[in-house]
Amino acid sequence: MKELQVALNDKGYPIYIGTGLLRQQKLLVNHIKSKQVLIVTNTTIAPLYLDEVIQCLNGFQVEVIELPDGEEYKNLENVTKIFDLLLAKKYSRNATLIALGGGVIGDMGGFAAACYQRGMPFIQIPTTVLAQVDSSVGGKTGVNHPLGKNMIGAFYQPQCVIADIDVLDTLDDRQLSAGLAEVIKYGLIRDLEFFEWLEKNITLVLARDKEALAYIIERSCINKADVVAEDEFEAGIRATLNLGHTFGHAIETGMGYGEYLHGEAVAIGIGYAADLSERMGWITTNDIARILSLLKLAKLPVAPPEKMDVSQFIDLMAVDKKNIDGKIRLILLESIGKATLPVHIEQSLLEQTLKSYAG
Amino acid sequence: MKELQVALNDKGYPIYIGTGLLRQQKLLVNHIKSKQVLIVTNTTIAPLYLDEVIQCLNGFQVEVIELPDGEEYKNLENVTKIFDLLLAKKYSRNATLIALGGGVIGDMGGFAAACYQRGMPFIQIPTTVLAQVDSSVGGKTGVNHPLGKNMIGAFYQPQCVIADIDVLDTLDDRQLSAGLAEVIKYGLIRDLEFFEWLEKNITLVLARDKEALAYIIERSCINKADVVAEDEFEAGIRATLNLGHTFGHAIETGMGYGEYLHGEAVAIGIGYAADLSERMGWITTNDIARILSLLKLAKLPVAPPEKMDVSQFIDLMAVDKKNIDGKIRLILLESIGKATLPVHIEQSLLEQTLKSYAG
Repeated sequence: MKELQVALNDKGYPIYIGTGLLRQQKLLVNHIKSKQVLIVTNTTIAPLYLDEVIQCLNGFQVEVIELPDGEEYKNLENVTKIFDLLLAKKYSRNATLIALGGGVIGDMGGFAAACYQRGMPFIQIPTTVLAQVDSSVGGKTGVNHPLGKNMIGAFYQPQCVIADIDVLDTLDDRQLSAGLAEVIKYGLIRDLEFFEWLEKNITLVLARDKEALAYIIERSCINKADVVAEDEFEAGIRATLNLGHTFGHAIETGMGYGEYLHGEAVAIGIGYAADLSERMGWITTNDIARILSLLKLAKLPVAPPEKMDVSQFIDLMAVDKKNIDGKIRLILLESIGKATLPVHIEQSLLEQTLKSYAG
Repeated sequence: MKELQVALNDKGYPIYIGTGLLRQQKLLVNHIKSKQVLIVTNTTIAPLYLDEVIQCLNGFQVEVIELPDGEEYKNLENVTKIFDLLLAKKYSRNATLIALGGGVIGDMGGFAAACYQRGMPFIQIPTTVLAQVDSSVGGKTGVNHPLGKNMIGAFYQPQCVIADIDVLDTLDDRQLSAGLAEVIKYGLIRDLEFFEWLEKNITLVLARDKEALAYIIERSCINKADVVAEDEFEAGIRATLNLGHTFGHAIETGMGYGEYLHGEAVAIGIGYAADLSERMGWITTNDIARILSLLKLAKLPVAPPEKMDVSQFIDLMAVDKKNIDGKIRLILLESIGKATLPVHIEQSLLEQTLKSYAG
């Protein structure tokens, strides 16, 4: 087992990465502060891993809420169901919420924990590559709004993150690939060596080689933890983690949540960002080719959704957390391995990319 | 004008107290960071003071949302209406939300600001005594749940608080008295001299003498700001501000939100807490008489609601943010001018108070 630390003073916490972690009772129990525990999970994960987690919780009062599986359920209505159960069971502010699932469960569970009685402790047990390498680390929680992705939420850090690589055995191929979009992102924004490793070893990862999986999860978490420790509330450098996300969020919202997986939308978004970075004169057409090639090798989509036009993109991108005074700001690439801070781009240039980029 | 400071390092902010403040454009505008402004207010306050505030905002994009007036509307549904408007207008994370109203508007507006894009700046313009002396200061935001008062929320500090005493001219007598419950509370928990001043001058306050009003608002805010600066997240001393509130919240929830004003329920709750403190041997029957006498002079109710029985109280009090592992903990009085930290009380003793206290 590897243990990383997210260095946030009094809010710091460990990320545990390894195999067989769900059966290590102490790992979980050491981070629980009272007898009352609520597990938030979904209908896909519950039959697979809920029993293992419950077996670690002998002697605790354990309640469970199973939500439907999918991005289209990441909304206030489902967070309200968590509140309803917590209150029906008279759970106190020192009760612990465990989010057992992918990014959707982690985001909703974390947001419920942030708001319940103005904050209760919570633990992330991510069960997808995407959640293990990205969404479970760093305290971004929240839900979607029909007009914008992740528009309602809180910065709220967990007690710990338990990333058990064994749970990836049951992850379907599409979900595995979706997670790799965020993995590739770390290489692109700040870790050229990792990008090059991925170029060489991506087939090993897709074949679910345990060592390769452990490596990409650990290296991604190191990158994420570094950035979060430097800029918890996204006043600066943390925004670089959003490479491809402004385009990606527009796709998720525009196509209807759940149509594309988050990682798939991000992959297409990275393609757009690369195209625009090249128009700015920062990266070369050869860089674009390398980026698209790796995304495709990871079995990710790179072509824009056919149903969305330029004006819909612009309209949806006008709602983004990096914007200032309604003006669109984007993370682009200065090179492979180095992202820009949010930059305002001439609308005409953005429109060129939106019109011309074909994947 | 008096200016107090809430000392919270990088989250610190001023409280302005005085007359004619709503017409002082710079006071407001100096705390606004971008062109986009949303005013959250209610249908009672809008006809009275909305124009004055809008006149200060020349050159800004100003949107307004008017919510219905009353504790029964302090819920997620109305907060969602704020999100809907912010997104429909494509407001950015650096837009400013102004909460213009009493405690309900401040709590909902503040919570919406805390969650919108994981946090946007907001300004409190409290228009009731209760909001000016208590709820607008210290960053407690949130909404009610059918099973518990203020159960969903966030600690989220405003950019500033503008307490214009002139707006109290239009406050009805019942609301004025309700605010005095929190004023008297400060005397009881940590400021004996203030309690004694109130015993002597309460009729002056009820007659709306401007100097007396300014004094109680300033002195209350000094007390509140001191406590909040010491313990922002209620790990300790801040809980003393909850004197009477565990009983009071049970009354508000049990009788239906809006039946009693918050301050009225707190006044009754202070009576219960005094009764229990006397049973613990901490205060005397003479102390109780002084406390009830002042509450009555302030035209506050002190008698328990007839429709609630002991078991309903116990059941509702089992949902409270001070509880640990579901065990009820209360703030009581060691003397007039000194509150306890949260204490667990034998249920039999609590039941005696709930059975016997008659106001």
